[in-house]
Amino acid sequence: PPGEPDIIGLELSGTSDATGETVCALVAGGGHAEYVAAPAGQLFPAPARLDLVTAAGIPEAFLTAFVNLVMEAGLSRSETLLVHAGASGVGLAAIQLGKLLGARVAATTRTSEKLAALASAGADLAIDTGRHDFAEQIEERWGRDAVDVVLDPIGAPSLAGDMRVLATGGRGRVVFISTMAGARAEVDLALVMRKRARLLGSTLRARSRAEKGAIVARFKREILAAFASDELRVPVDTVFPVHRAAEAFQRMRENRNVGKILIAWPRD
Amino acid sequence: PPGEPDIIGLELSGTSDATGETVCALVAGGGHAEYVAAPAGQLFPAPARLDLVTAAGIPEAFLTAFVNLVMEAGLSRSETLLVHAGASGVGLAAIQLGKLLGARVAATTRTSEKLAALASAGADLAIDTGRHDFAEQIEERWGRDAVDVVLDPIGAPSLAGDMRVLATGGRGRVVFISTMAGARAEVDLALVMRKRARLLGSTLRARSRAEKGAIVARFKREILAAFASDELRVPVDTVFPVHRAAEAFQRMRENRNVGKILIAWPRD
Repeated sequence: PPGEPDIIGLELSGTSDATGETVCALVAGGGHAEYVAAPAGQLFPAPARLDLVTAAGIPEAFLTAFVNLVMEAGLSRSETLLVHAGASGVGLAAIQLGKLLGARVAATTRTSEKLAALASAGADLAIDTGRHDFAEQIEERWGRDAVDVVLDPIGAPSLAGDMRVLATGGRGRVVFISTMAGARAEVDLALVMRKRARLLGSTLRARSRAEKGAIVARFKREILAAFASDELRVPVDTVFPVHRAAEAFQRMRENRNVGKILIAWPRD
Repeated sequence: PPGEPDIIGLELSGTSDATGETVCALVAGGGHAEYVAAPAGQLFPAPARLDLVTAAGIPEAFLTAFVNLVMEAGLSRSETLLVHAGASGVGLAAIQLGKLLGARVAATTRTSEKLAALASAGADLAIDTGRHDFAEQIEERWGRDAVDVVLDPIGAPSLAGDMRVLATGGRGRVVFISTMAGARAEVDLALVMRKRARLLGSTLRARSRAEKGAIVARFKREILAAFASDELRVPVDTVFPVHRAAEAFQRMRENRNVGKILIAWPRD
């Protein structure tokens, strides 16, 4: 965004020059640097239980899951959540957060080797979309119209299936947080009406500092303690030292990671 | 719906056998009859200022406008509302309700002879979609991304224009209440995301009696008095005596009406 650094990197952990505390931060750019300036409202304490590098895996994944499940969709206890791309950093955070909030959780991946990670994050139903139609699987296991909230970073190819499994009577919400597999989709507005569904578009990065501050404040209050009690775990795929950062990006591009790839800077 | 009468008719006014009061009612069927049984929660007093036949034009039009603008979209003062099919009964009710709630209102019709009705209902901007692209007209007059809430009974053909004029940053909501001109539409999910838009499907008829009761209770409390003060007026197109009901339906089928066509039964 305008006014933000050209350096990439949207999240980090480190030691605050101002207070000496170890902190995590959500930024709009500049995260992949040795020294980073971050708005105070977008900082939160790094959980003491975690090593500082691991804590860098919290901000983007868990704040994205939190803002969309809690603040946008209003997921509530005993509802059913479907998480697409469940083995991504955001996906594994969303599965855990869904369980922490008391929901029943289904998750999808198109890579069969990643199925186990969905189950260990707590998914009640893990679906390999390379081999199965997710809507069919969910109907077979949980019946028709069983899903209250869908967290969807896939986009066009999943919309029809999302609509099919969605709950009726105004309970069903789909939150689109990315359009990885295509943005232009056909939507059946008659079905949207009949189910009284809500299709929501959501981004985190483009929000104002004031909005991000409000999200971080609520996350600190309601969620952060769950890292201390080990109810939430940062899904770490690999840690690369900074001089091997190129390998980290290559691994991500090839979609080989399960959860977060972290880059470690040398400590002073 | 199951358990409801085969006789058509979703709204009516009349004298309650139970209390002797003049009332309006929203029903799920059976409205076009001399005697109608209606759930007590779906009755409200007929405004004394109106003749009883005119009052029959309130329930469906104004409750639809109310539930969607207020309860679904949460339209608030100083927001901007776009009403499609503005010369319909629901459309004219929504324009008036939008102004009553303090919004700036644009409305569309595809019949140029009906434009004047939009302006007299209070529309700040009345657009003939037979001659103009509504999104262009709104951008020309009010700038880009100017619309907070769209009430859309059109469906597929208006979705792209709705998305184009919609506000950004989570303020923009489109409520689909019908799909008169087509249900299958292409939606650009990337734009939905970027604008943080909310696409909502809504129906009134399919809701439970409990839900309808809650809507009617709130409507009585917050809106009904505006008929007594003449801030809201029932948009009456024509009144047909019951023995000419066929003409009423013919006029509606030919889309010649502006506002409600009412059928009057002989009084005792």
